[in-house]
Amino acid sequence: MKQIDVLIDKIRKTKNPVCVGLDTMHEYLPESMQRTIVDVKSAAAEVLRFNMALIDCLADIIPCVKVQVAYYEMYGSAGMKTFNKTLKYARSKGLVTIADVKRNDIGDTASAYAKAYLSGLCVHGQLSTGFDADFATINPYLGTDGVAPFVSACEQTGKGLFVLVKTSNPSSGEFQDLTIGGETLYECVGKKVAQWGHSTVGQYGYSSVGAVVGATYPEQAKKLRELLPSVFFLIPGYGAQGAKASDIVCNFDSRGLGGIINSSRGILLAHRSAKYEKLGFENAARQAVIDMQSDILSAFNDNRITL
Amino acid sequence: MKQIDVLIDKIRKTKNPVCVGLDTMHEYLPESMQRTIVDVKSAAAEVLRFNMALIDCLADIIPCVKVQVAYYEMYGSAGMKTFNKTLKYARSKGLVTIADVKRNDIGDTASAYAKAYLSGLCVHGQLSTGFDADFATINPYLGTDGVAPFVSACEQTGKGLFVLVKTSNPSSGEFQDLTIGGETLYECVGKKVAQWGHSTVGQYGYSSVGAVVGATYPEQAKKLRELLPSVFFLIPGYGAQGAKASDIVCNFDSRGLGGIINSSRGILLAHRSAKYEKLGFENAARQAVIDMQSDILSAFNDNRITL
Repeated sequence: MKQIDVLIDKIRKTKNPVCVGLDTMHEYLPESMQRTIVDVKSAAAEVLRFNMALIDCLADIIPCVKVQVAYYEMYGSAGMKTFNKTLKYARSKGLVTIADVKRNDIGDTASAYAKAYLSGLCVHGQLSTGFDADFATINPYLGTDGVAPFVSACEQTGKGLFVLVKTSNPSSGEFQDLTIGGETLYECVGKKVAQWGHSTVGQYGYSSVGAVVGATYPEQAKKLRELLPSVFFLIPGYGAQGAKASDIVCNFDSRGLGGIINSSRGILLAHRSAKYEKLGFENAARQAVIDMQSDILSAFNDNRITL
Repeated sequence: MKQIDVLIDKIRKTKNPVCVGLDTMHEYLPESMQRTIVDVKSAAAEVLRFNMALIDCLADIIPCVKVQVAYYEMYGSAGMKTFNKTLKYARSKGLVTIADVKRNDIGDTASAYAKAYLSGLCVHGQLSTGFDADFATINPYLGTDGVAPFVSACEQTGKGLFVLVKTSNPSSGEFQDLTIGGETLYECVGKKVAQWGHSTVGQYGYSSVGAVVGATYPEQAKKLRELLPSVFFLIPGYGAQGAKASDIVCNFDSRGLGGIINSSRGILLAHRSAKYEKLGFENAARQAVIDMQSDILSAFNDNRITL
């Protein structure tokens, strides 16, 4: 079964198109957990403990987590172990996992990345996947032959990708919005994403090769949604980065499908906001997810979208 | 002291603008080393042993190594330890190290990557760098605010970057060669690279923010060299990918400075080529480096370039 269909099934079951981003730095942890941190190793260990507690508390109400590898690479090898264990634990709790790695390279090197996150490496007859996830994010700057090994891995395993198309950051337009013969670079990349995914369209009409489309640029998202009806979007930028639920509805079809909205700091740091601080970090996160879900479903309702 | 100047000093001292790419897969190892591999961990351990032997045999004749992280991520956490130990061992032997990671993200996440490879993370008053390298490669698709944290880390530490501008792969032109108002995307990115590096120009006139410019596209490289006189190039594509020494000379100034030419498989797999197979893998690699150096210096000579 395709993981894109598994993801959509879970979104429908939880009625929640929200992805929790585990961009966990040790500075984000509650005071009580920070007290035991004395070095990089104990920091990585506490980050894992925090992630597991959060996963335990959220697994019944969210479809998936996105784990941002940069925050784990920061802690070196110990961090990479925490990254791997976080992915494993999330999956053991029934969550779909997105490794947010934005990897990119050419030919054999792209294949090596695809093995690391998606399809696994065969050593002495045993297949093992370094950091096993259901989806990985990738960067398209190197063109088709940098992406093809990742797409092959998806065809082989049923897993999926999210390719950077229009990112949520302030200077995303610097290159992505440049106009090339009447269309922008992000439209040009978006069309390639649709091509790369055309052989992997699943039962809901969305392919295994998705796109990252920032919520902070609703006009561009609207264009991309029209241009790419079979491409599922991973949507960052809600909350801390400034996008509202009303900015995001354009990404969805009338079934409430077509995207998953990520929030990281809004959930991870809920325990520090006045609104949730009395709840403890797990329940603060849970309530923040529930409030985000309500906010989005209410915007869906205003736009005659029924998940 | 700026690492770009350290690198150039070493290039001048060794009279060798060659970077050895440690894109080491366990399948590349000689039979005798492969025999002890029974799982991912022992594969990662043997890759480290191979890398260390190669570094020992090459450290006096090359200025630097480039370690391609994809081949280490493939082996999971064990691979990341080998990646880290390879970087440390190369540095202990006096080599400049390039972490070929092609990282890219926005704001805080780009900062996390910069900490992981360049500037280090402070935990409980101790600074530690997850995977400590002198240079890191990065991908520019997200624009200035995705690059700025890496540039800040360089300003702070004296380390450097190589930003993907024009890559060496067959479909690199798909996006990079698109024309935007009279100039190509790679030229547009190249000009930004020069801007990002303008505050870090070192004693030889080259900045800490370099560019990846594939040897397989000499016409484009020529344009970039003219456009970006203060940008140092990391040049992949020689040998296995098809570029010749005569394709590469355009990247260099009359002092033989301006770039470093990478070869990975040509050196790592020298022990399997008919020309070198009798030498043992270390000396095969050494002779392959010496032959590559001669080839390049001879092309320099033909073009009145004196290193």
